[in-house]
Parts: sequence; C-alpha cells; structure tokens
Amino acid sequence: MDATNPYRKGLEKNAANFTPLSPLSLLARTAAVYPGRTAVIYGDVSLSWSTVYERCRRLASALSRHGIGEGDTVAAMLPNVPAMNEAHFGVPMTGAVLNTLNTRLDAEAIAFMLDHGEAKVLLTDREFSPTIEKALTLVNKKPLVIDVDDPAFEGGKRLGTVDYDTFIAGGDAGYDWQLPGDEWNAIALNYTSGTTGNPKGVVYHHRGAYLNAVSNILSWGMAPHPVYLWTLPMFHCNGWCFPWTLAAAAGTSVCLRRVEAQAIFDLIRAHKVTHYCGAPIVHNLLLNAPASMKQGIKHTVNCLVAGAAPPVAVIEGMEKMGFNLTHVYGLTETYGPAAVCAKHEAWDALDVERRAELNGRQGVAYHLQQGMTVMDPETMQAVPHDGETMGEIMFRGNITMKGYLKNEAATREAFAGGWFHSGDLGVLQPDGYVKIKDRSKDIIISGGENISSIEVEDALYRHPAVLAAAVVAKPDAKWGEVPCAFVELKAGTAPSEQEIIDHCRTRMAHFKAPRQVVFGELPKTSTGKIQKFVLRAQVRSASAMDK
Amino acid sequence: MDATNPYRKGLEKNAANFTPLSPLSLLARTAAVYPGRTAVIYGDVSLSWSTVYERCRRLASALSRHGIGEGDTVAAMLPNVPAMNEAHFGVPMTGAVLNTLNTRLDAEAIAFMLDHGEAKVLLTDREFSPTIEKALTLVNKKPLVIDVDDPAFEGGKRLGTVDYDTFIAGGDAGYDWQLPGDEWNAIALNYTSGTTGNPKGVVYHHRGAYLNAVSNILSWGMAPHPVYLWTLPMFHCNGWCFPWTLAAAAGTSVCLRRVEAQAIFDLIRAHKVTHYCGAPIVHNLLLNAPASMKQGIKHTVNCLVAGAAPPVAVIEGMEKMGFNLTHVYGLTETYGPAAVCAKHEAWDALDVERRAELNGRQGVAYHLQQGMTVMDPETMQAVPHDGETMGEIMFRGNITMKGYLKNEAATREAFAGGWFHSGDLGVLQPDGYVKIKDRSKDIIISGGENISSIEVEDALYRHPAVLAAAVVAKPDAKWGEVPCAFVELKAGTAPSEQEIIDHCRTRMAHFKAPRQVVFGELPKTSTGKIQKFVLRAQVRSASAMDK
Repeated sequence: MDATNPYRKGLEKNAANFTPLSPLSLLARTAAVYPGRTAVIYGDVSLSWSTVYERCRRLASALSRHGIGEGDTVAAMLPNVPAMNEAHFGVPMTGAVLNTLNTRLDAEAIAFMLDHGEAKVLLTDREFSPTIEKALTLVNKKPLVIDVDDPAFEGGKRLGTVDYDTFIAGGDAGYDWQLPGDEWNAIALNYTSGTTGNPKGVVYHHRGAYLNAVSNILSWGMAPHPVYLWTLPMFHCNGWCFPWTLAAAAGTSVCLRRVEAQAIFDLIRAHKVTHYCGAPIVHNLLLNAPASMKQGIKHTVNCLVAGAAPPVAVIEGMEKMGFNLTHVYGLTETYGPAAVCAKHEAWDALDVERRAELNGRQGVAYHLQQGMTVMDPETMQAVPHDGETMGEIMFRGNITMKGYLKNEAATREAFAGGWFHSGDLGVLQPDGYVKIKDRSKDIIISGGENISSIEVEDALYRHPAVLAAAVVAKPDAKWGEVPCAFVELKAGTAPSEQEIIDHCRTRMAHFKAPRQVVFGELPKTSTGKIQKFVLRAQVRSASAMDK
Repeated sequence: MDATNPYRKGLEKNAANFTPLSPLSLLARTAAVYPGRTAVIYGDVSLSWSTVYERCRRLASALSRHGIGEGDTVAAMLPNVPAMNEAHFGVPMTGAVLNTLNTRLDAEAIAFMLDHGEAKVLLTDREFSPTIEKALTLVNKKPLVIDVDDPAFEGGKRLGTVDYDTFIAGGDAGYDWQLPGDEWNAIALNYTSGTTGNPKGVVYHHRGAYLNAVSNILSWGMAPHPVYLWTLPMFHCNGWCFPWTLAAAAGTSVCLRRVEAQAIFDLIRAHKVTHYCGAPIVHNLLLNAPASMKQGIKHTVNCLVAGAAPPVAVIEGMEKMGFNLTHVYGLTETYGPAAVCAKHEAWDALDVERRAELNGRQGVAYHLQQGMTVMDPETMQAVPHDGETMGEIMFRGNITMKGYLKNEAATREAFAGGWFHSGDLGVLQPDGYVKIKDRSKDIIISGGENISSIEVEDALYRHPAVLAAAVVAKPDAKWGEVPCAFVELKAGTAPSEQEIIDHCRTRMAHFKAPRQVVFGELPKTSTGKIQKFVLRAQVRSASAMDK
C-alpha cells in the first residue's frame, strides 16, 4: 500500500471499532432494550423478547454440550412454530449452520440433504414423522433427533431420543455465546428445490443475513415493532430472513402451522397483524375467501408477494381489502428477496391495470444489495433499457450466497463474470426496472420466435374466470413448439377453450396465444409455485402418444 | 482453520457475492431508482437525485483530474449549502477523504487542521473569507482553493483560483467512480473541538459511514422519503451521517445557511419538513419563537436532540407544537449519534416530568452499533444497573472511528481494553439505559462528595425563568469545590439569586445546590454547546481575585 497515505497507519481494526456483522447482535440488542415486548405469539402462548433470547441461549448451550460447534450442521424439519424461530438464533450462536428442510419433500430428498449437509442434529415435528422415519433409514449417518412435540398437532409419532423442551431445559440460560470469528462464516444452508438432478446446498453467511434482515426493513419501509404473521414457511430461504428482521425491528412473530384463510383472518384481527409475506397463492386464498371472514379488519395490512407478478385482479382486490401489496423478487441464492418493485407516488394516479403492470415487475435491487440488472450472459453487457431485448437477470452484492456447498463447479458457473446468474430471463424497461420474461428453460420457441410463457400467463390471469394459469411448450411438427395453457378456474365458472384462446389473442400476437387450453387443478410446490415440470412432462407424454 | 469444516472450501469472496460497504452505493441506487425525486432544495433551487448524482460525479472527476485520489484530503469550510452535500459523495468517489471544518473556528485552528490533515484542496465560502484568508497565510502548504460562490450571501471575498460551479463543469458527468478497495478505507476526517491542546483528527471509514447512515433510519424509525431540514451543521460529524442517510432513504435535503426561527418555520411549512436534528439551543429557539411564526404547521415534525438532556419544559413545549422529540447521544468518535433513548409505548401514559426523565437519557446503543455501557475504566467491569454507581460511558462496534490521525498514543488510549472511552461519566439505570452524569472533568467534588453538574443543571432548567444553565466547580477554602451556576434568563423574567438556589434545594441535597448564581448570556460553541471551560476560567479568575 501507498506509504504516503496517512490514513493507513495506526488506524487498524480492534475490538472497540470492529465487530463481525451478525443477526445474533440484533437479537441481543432487542432483548436488552425491549425485554418485555412480545416476540412470539403461538396459539395461547406468548413469549417476550427476553424469554426468546433465554430460550435461544439454552438451545445453543445444549447443542454446544452435545458437541455442536463451528462448521457443524443442525437440520430442522419444522412448521412455523416458536422452536423454528429459536433455531435461527440458537444454532448459529454455537457457530453451527442451520439447515431448514422443506417439509413437503419426500424421504429420499430429505435423506440426500441430511447426508450432503452432514447434519449432526435434526429437529423434527410429529407431522412429518412418516417422511423422517423413512429418511432416517436411508441416511449414512444418523443425526441426534430432537422432537419438537407440538400439542397443536395430533398424530404422527415421536422419533427422537429427546424432546425439544427437555433438551433446552438442560441448557444454560446464561450461555456465553460468541459472535462468529468472521462475518463471512456460514449461518444457514438452504437446498434449492431443483427439478432435475440433486438439489444444491446454498450457503448463507452472517454478513449477508444481517444485511438482508436490515434491508427488508428499508426496502419495505417497515415501521418499528411490526406484527408479522408467518404465512411464509420459515424453511423457505430462512423465511426470507424475517426471523432476523423481526429481531432488528423488535417486532412480534405470530406463528402459524398451516395456511388457512379462517385462521389467517382471525389472527390478523386478534393481533392487529401489520405485515405478512407469501407466494401469490396465499394472497389469492385470502382474496377469494368469503366476505364474512374479512370483517372487522380496519387497519392497513402490508404484504409482500414474490414469484409470479400479481395479476390486476389480485392487486385490485387487495386494495379493496385495505391490503397494501409490494412485489419482491429473489432466489434462494439471494437470501430470498433481494429486489423490490419500489413504488412511486406518481403511479397512484394511474388506473389499476397500469398500476398493476408497474407494481408487478421484479424492480430494482434491495437497498443493501449492490446491483441487479439484465445482461447478455455471453458478453456480460447490460441490455438496453428498451423493454424488449432479453437477457439473463443477474445480481451482485452482499446479499448473495457464499456459494453451493461442496460444489465448486456449480458455484463457479453461477458466479461467472462476477455476477450471480439467476437463470431467469428478463428485460430492462425504460425506467431501469427489471421485468422477468421467463426461466431460460420456460421460454417457448415457436417458428424461431421466442414466446415468454409469463407474458401468456399474464394475459390468462386477466380473464375473470382464471384462478391460476401456467403455459408450457408443446412439441409441434410444424412450429417446433407452440404454447399450451393449463388453467385452474374459479368456482362457478366454465369458459370454453376457445373463449380463453380468443381472450389471449386480443392481448398479444396470435402466434403467442395458446393453441390448447387444459382445464383442471394445477400441481404446486409447498411454497405455492406451480410445478411446470409436471405439466411439461404431461404435455410431452401426450404428444408422444399423439404420434 | 478446521479442515473438516465443509463451509470453508470453495466458498470464497468474489465480485458477485462481496461488495465493500460504502455510502456511495446508497447514492447510486437512489439516483437510479428515483432519478426525478427532489434530493436538494435551497432557496429557489431544487435538484433531483439524478442531478445531484451527476454533480457529485463531476466533482469527483474534476478532483481526480487535479490529481486527487486515495488517501488525499479535501477540506470544506462551508455552511449547509448544496455543494457541502455534494462533497460528501464527490470527494470519496475519488478515494479521497472529506475534512469538514467547523466554520466558527479561528484562523489558527483552521491552519492547524489544514496542515495536520494535509489538505490538497479547500472548498470555501465568502462568509468565512476573513478566517480562511488568514489561515492560508499560516499554513505550510497551500491547498487548491475553490470558492463556493453562493449568491445568497453578500459580502466577504473570493479567495480561490476557481469557483465551484466552473470547477465541476469541467468534470465528467459520467465519471466512472470506484468503490473503495476496502470498506475500512477512510471516508472522512473530523477534528474534535478540544478545549485544551491541539484538536484530534477523528477518522471515519466507509463501513461505519454506511452502517450509521442506515442505523439513523432504524433507530429513528424514519419512513421512506423524509423531508429533512438542515438545522444541524453538516460540518459537525458529517451532519451525523445524514447526507448519507438521506441517500439511503431517498429523502429531500432542505438546505439552510443560518439557523433562524422564522426561516425554519417557513421552510417547515413550505416543504412539509418531516425531520430535523439539532443541539438543545435549536429546539429552544423554535419553542420560544412567537406563536404567530408557528401557525399553519399541521403535520408531525420529528426531531433529534443531542447534547444536554432536554428539560421537561422543552419536551412539553415540543409536544404541544406537535413536534416529536427523540434524544440521541454520541461523540465525534462515534460518527455523531450512536445511541438513542429508545422509547417505550408504556411511557406515554406517564406524566410529562417522568416522561422527560425517561426520554432524556442517553439510552442504548444504536441498532447497528454493537454496544454501549458504563464501566469502571480501571477494571473494565460494567457497573451494576443501580442508577447510582458511576463509571465511564463506553462504546464498541462498527460505528466507532478508525482512530485519531497520526496520533497512535491517543488512539491506543481511547481504545484501551477493547472499548472506546467516551470521557463521559454515567450510570446504568435498572432498565439498562445509560444516563450521563458528567464529563470526567465537569464533576464537582465538594467535601469529598461527587456532585454531577448535569444533575444541578437539570434542576435549574425546571425553573420557569431559566433559558439556559451551566454549573461548574468554584474553588472553596472549606469544601474544596462548590457548585456555581451560570444562568441565562428568558426575556421578561427576573428571579433573584436566592429564588434560584431555593428552587434547587427543593430538588436535591442541599450541598449539591449552587452556592452562587451568575445571571447573563452563556458562551456557546458553534454547535450550541455551552462552553463550560470559559465559565470555569471566569470562576477561577474571580476566585483568585477574591484571595
């Protein structure tokens, strides 16, 4: 370094002026400043921040006595219950890494993750005992199994050697946890739900978890002390980092085992819920619930939606309910949302269709994410702001994973050229906002022209009878591929196939409109995403039979 | 490192997943997302975020062409004008360090700072030309002088070789600035206004500036797009990091050359100002302004106060005006405020005296500051939470300076034991909140008993005639020292000395009440702090004459 630079000498880091960034600090602060505030509500149980902090320390202490420490993995197969929230703090307090498992997965997938992640401990719930029991017969090395024995669930069986409350009761409430030696240390492991091949283990670090916890507040404009309803699974990208966000904001987590409209409206009313997150399916569920369920909610409820852009009908319906919807975007690799469709006051004056278009985009990088753009992945040049030229959506910055566990090739590929490659195709609109066009593999190529399946789906969602829609490529002898639509209808409606096709044709070039419409319930993942790969397989096998 | 830790291999930092933290990123994001929003208002001038970003890049480009780069210092002797805001971004964009100078200092102090900080460029304003002209005759090496030629000020003279607008017009609006190579790099240099010896140069880094910019939002609970009035000098701890906070929050800076009640109320009304900061004197000024000035302000104005705890009368008066006061605490060494007296809803039900007591404390560490506590500086043990045991207030964490420039001895001393020693004495109250008792040097020792001058001042402020008060030790043959009060009275009041003493005696042990009360205007620093050292000198010389 430049020896003449006077700012380099005698100004080194020390214990007074440098602390590793970690969401654990956010918990410690809130427990100290607001010890009596409600941190967690679950049924009739209400836990203060000091109690939650104590329970997290007990968990950490008990894990530590069991030999868990830096670089070890603790897995959790849990619904949105208080223990799941505590695991987000108690596990990293020991230096270990939390691996939350998707509770809808099958035994084989779970066994793969337990082995690949080298889980030494598994927290589990009776509801998932059929899967876990089988998974434990498949793993190479059986972890210590701890039952979170939730009285709110009846059935299943306990599989563990100890139950959670007994386990943490043996821990020390004054456990002297330490911050990570390096903020780059891992805090969480989240497996992507890949549709082909083995899932990849996305590793988060303390620095990113801390910064995204804070960025959720900034990018959503959250006031202090939110009351947050857990409609989003905590297993999904660590609940988009919201367990840590709520520690930063000294908020209240209202836990929820199962997404049901009645329960959600009851909790919103009872606890004056101010915030919740979810896939479009969650918002649709609330929107389509009977009016009687919604009565008595007078305050504004803020909600984040990710995944497919919310259709106009949803945005309009939410507005009428007094719900304030914000669209976010991200991937497991970006700690959940790392982009937001930041709103502009000028948009309020526009009609709802135009507003829905503008507010339904993937938007711009989160406040504390460095960048999001659309580039040609070959040249790594950003596409023009023309709303037309497609490229791959890319992220860079501190809210981007460390990489894939034990998969250097995939990590290198994902980070090629110094940006994280999302695999999503999009455009940059004239205002610089990103709009997704498709997953690379979801694009339909018909007569040499690209058709964005999302564009066709957007048109379908604008039909008043359509509850959910997905469009996939159907092999076609003449055109190569043509769009095939799968449509789930609202109760009491019965449009014809032709009516749906005609509806689309009024909104787009004819070659983009679906050639075929299949009615029926759509296959969805546990987080509400439509499983296009199932539909694609269905179309392919039907086409094969046609021949 | 542990070779068996699977989270260490193949998960290194790269350009995609690691970015140095810097407030420059906050400007770039806001300019991209809200290019048309108003960033700066000054008189009739209104600048959008894209214009401000362009002007900052031009400044950086022009400085860079002048040879300014990493480790160089650019000084600024400026009031709260747009150029001062731009310097907070344009200077660090080149890798250089911004040294804002206290505009009330004399030529000798300024010359010392220019030499010690090795300033290569100086931005200055005609108002300060008498001081700067003399200072430039005293410096060892004359910097490039650039005049910020503000038409709003009449008089003084231009001293530079170029004026600011011409200088930046020569810069490139598309200048390709770079983030610092390391977030630990210096971004700002702020000299403490030491009352003895040479001032010390406090060095801030990009990481801390970024984190405090964000922490201001969290700890004040700021909603997006604040309209911020610049009553606080930007030269003071970089305006408590608010130039960077406003970039994070995409807010509007309303600039203000001079603190005057009429102008402040006019701007609050005209621009619907939502936030401002200031020393107690600023709030007092507004409170004591004629009612006619205050008319027509219907919205809530949020204000931060630092320095002396706001007396009950101020808190009550502000409440009546619809102003929402929050008390913060910090030092130059902690980037301005790094502690906040975080409010509790339960306090709202208390009477105003008790509320003022609770809300007037130094409080707790900022959200993103790691810790603040009170310790015995010998043993480095925290004092008990008894509200009685005095110790030294200490900070640690990322919102703590790199150290003092070219002063390793002072840096080591300040950071002894892994905490930053504030030099302020305080206690921990039962709820863990810090309450300041005194500066080490301000404590009065009377008959072997400690008297907190702040405690006596608090009592004085509760007298309805008292506008400002300061208590210092007066040498006393019998007791060693006794408290002597200096009191500035409100217009139209004339209490007797005895009345003031009696008022204090009803509120504290008699030995703590002032023995003498001197009426008159109090000497204050440019930031509104009462200059106790002047009063102390006055008392000592009077005592000497007594003998």
